[in-house]
Amino acid sequence: MQRTLVKAALAAEGPSDALRVQGWIRTRRDAKGLSFLELNDGSCLKNLQVLLEEGSPAYADHERYTTGSAIDVTGRLVASQGKGQSWELLADSIELVGAADSSYPLQKKRHTLEYLREIAHLRPRSNLFGAVFRMRSRLSFAIHQFFNERSFLYVHTPIITASDCEGAGEMFRVTTLDGKETDSKKDFFGKPTFLTVSGQLEAEIFATSHSNVYTFGPTFRAENSHTSRHASEFWMIEPEMAFCDLEGDMDLAEAFVKHLVADALEHCAEDLEFLNQFVDKGLLERLQFVVERPFQRITYYDAVELLQKSGKDFQYAVEKGANLQSEHERYLTEEHFKSPVTVYNYPKTVKPFYMRQNDDDATVAAMDVLVPGIGEIVGGSQREERLERLDAAIRAHDLDPEDYWWYRDLRRYGSVPHAGFGLGFERMLMFITGVHNIRDVIPFARTPGNAEF
Amino acid sequence: MQRTLVKAALAAEGPSDALRVQGWIRTRRDAKGLSFLELNDGSCLKNLQVLLEEGSPAYADHERYTTGSAIDVTGRLVASQGKGQSWELLADSIELVGAADSSYPLQKKRHTLEYLREIAHLRPRSNLFGAVFRMRSRLSFAIHQFFNERSFLYVHTPIITASDCEGAGEMFRVTTLDGKETDSKKDFFGKPTFLTVSGQLEAEIFATSHSNVYTFGPTFRAENSHTSRHASEFWMIEPEMAFCDLEGDMDLAEAFVKHLVADALEHCAEDLEFLNQFVDKGLLERLQFVVERPFQRITYYDAVELLQKSGKDFQYAVEKGANLQSEHERYLTEEHFKSPVTVYNYPKTVKPFYMRQNDDDATVAAMDVLVPGIGEIVGGSQREERLERLDAAIRAHDLDPEDYWWYRDLRRYGSVPHAGFGLGFERMLMFITGVHNIRDVIPFARTPGNAEF
Repeated sequence: MQRTLVKAALAAEGPSDALRVQGWIRTRRDAKGLSFLELNDGSCLKNLQVLLEEGSPAYADHERYTTGSAIDVTGRLVASQGKGQSWELLADSIELVGAADSSYPLQKKRHTLEYLREIAHLRPRSNLFGAVFRMRSRLSFAIHQFFNERSFLYVHTPIITASDCEGAGEMFRVTTLDGKETDSKKDFFGKPTFLTVSGQLEAEIFATSHSNVYTFGPTFRAENSHTSRHASEFWMIEPEMAFCDLEGDMDLAEAFVKHLVADALEHCAEDLEFLNQFVDKGLLERLQFVVERPFQRITYYDAVELLQKSGKDFQYAVEKGANLQSEHERYLTEEHFKSPVTVYNYPKTVKPFYMRQNDDDATVAAMDVLVPGIGEIVGGSQREERLERLDAAIRAHDLDPEDYWWYRDLRRYGSVPHAGFGLGFERMLMFITGVHNIRDVIPFARTPGNAEF
Repeated sequence: MQRTLVKAALAAEGPSDALRVQGWIRTRRDAKGLSFLELNDGSCLKNLQVLLEEGSPAYADHERYTTGSAIDVTGRLVASQGKGQSWELLADSIELVGAADSSYPLQKKRHTLEYLREIAHLRPRSNLFGAVFRMRSRLSFAIHQFFNERSFLYVHTPIITASDCEGAGEMFRVTTLDGKETDSKKDFFGKPTFLTVSGQLEAEIFATSHSNVYTFGPTFRAENSHTSRHASEFWMIEPEMAFCDLEGDMDLAEAFVKHLVADALEHCAEDLEFLNQFVDKGLLERLQFVVERPFQRITYYDAVELLQKSGKDFQYAVEKGANLQSEHERYLTEEHFKSPVTVYNYPKTVKPFYMRQNDDDATVAAMDVLVPGIGEIVGGSQREERLERLDAAIRAHDLDPEDYWWYRDLRRYGSVPHAGFGLGFERMLMFITGVHNIRDVIPFARTPGNAEF
């Protein structure tokens, strides 16, 4: 008989005389002449209750069905008399596929997140991580749907790269040389190569051939950051649009953030209710709020003025011309506007070379989207499409125009105004799941000193 | 006025008084009092013909509209009098957004693929690469759709890894040490780390929590291969299913290959017709064939016997117990069966440690799917779920069970039969597009000595 997933069994429209489920036992509870198994197969948060009744062959040796064991059950799906579930399964036959003894670490008691990180190979079997990784999967699909519906081309930009997108950012080196050989001409690619920090420059290539494109892939930072918001390996989404200015870019970024939140509310309702109850009690309200409210927009200079007049005692002073600190960003979105905020037109001195200079000669057409609880979630800009200005900016950043020969070619042949942004997928997941540490929204996190699994 | 994509303009249901398109000029042809521009914006293969008529302001200075230039045109969409197109645009106004002079490399003449690889930043603007990368994007989406419809969880397995999936395969090292420092304890992760060759082992973790899962991400090989089928960086799809045996695995692999081919035929008809005409005249026929015909299945031993009796003069002898060579695989699929073939039950000595031993003690439950023109496109197996057998196999491959502690845990706690496979995305793209070199189905190929762009 074909397997039915628990998700489908729980959503059945009527009872069934013969149904087969396969999964792992979360708990067993014994009563007089009865044994109740909570069966989970990862297809949804809820378990299917399986009843073993005395007299049925399935009841024999029911003490074997311990927490963590894998079973294969056939039985009758009947309306449940218990609370909180529509259907339960009266077992006719049951097979113990794989046992788990009492050393199985995920017994019923609650574990710390720190401990669960050490058993990252088992934590997906817990309610919390089962939910988080279902949502990670669903939202990945929602990302592709969003861009597919809008005729955006998906581009796989390279992971191994010989260039450095931003002329900044610590990079990992990729090599086949052993320690003693240091001549990079003898290395695999004949020169020094690194793990990419962004696919943006290559995405711009495709924006000037296919108009609207996006990347969704892993990116890397070799920064020695030990915070709850930084990982050395994370996934990023980077759309890039030809014939688009900063306003179009902000429009897309805001629509994209709203789309992902709305998709989660629609498709992950059960998991979100669990997270709202056990991880962050304000979660659902905050998400609903983001979907319903328009995003506020404010220029960098106005934001600085607002912060300086706020009377708030910040750890870092608010200085005109300097980057906003995380506490400043969070004040804007959490306390002042109480909504997501898009800050735009930043001083050129704090931004990378490729951003388009505004006519004021002091700012560039950059924007960041800030959300409550996280701060910056999107960073983007209109790109400098004028070759002379680009060359000047490259030099002003102490970079060599020769290294950017192909990037410059895009400005020599049919150059167009274009714009894009990057959204860190894990930051977005933290925002949507309410989970506070980036290590807990990545299957196997890489951070300084950690590359287990 | 909002932009209309060329794809939408060409599919218009009726004429329009005011339409705005933006894109790049492929060619211009001048006639008496008329100028014809072929406009492409990457949204589809076909160009939109734009007519500049003497007397219209758009006609003035029309010599400026050179090949490669970017323009922004507003006009009236009218039924075309020319062949091969439904609609054309009578320009009312036109703006030269970005010029391209005669040094623009993509003039009308035909270029070699080798030359186009050197200008990989411009080749997406050609018909061929425009089509190939649209198909790459479409098929990526089709992959996610296929698994989403079947309730498979999408997992992002790690790129940087401290373990080596197969105990074989050359790997790139990832490091932040400079050449002089060789103590890997001082490296970023506190030990030697590499770029992943497969996400399978980590996917198995999620199969034992969420039942049906898949990966789709970049993988790496530091092999010094200079063939048209090998790249150092490529994307792979790896599904993994709990409560699944080799037969279920072969069923899924065959359905998956058929799905991708059928999706391309349905959604990329225009691009495929172009490729059929200019790249591989047998392409459409071959794809149709794969969708319609059932795949043949044959055991490794039967395949060896068949090859030995074929009377065919192979470069490499067919030896029982050895891996099949590419020429053997292609003989099976192209000459003998004339259809895709799934070969299964390989000798354990030629396969990795994690494959499930068959009862004959000589073979493992492995399978490869072979397709005409490519050879192996899918490699998969049922995994060894019995701890004792797994440990014996790890040792037999000269590996240390301790290094696989978490992989072994999956067999200690609720172990289940499970199976999966890997499909190389670029190989699949070569098969579906008819393009013969893997460098031409990747936006920016990485091969020994090459990491440009």
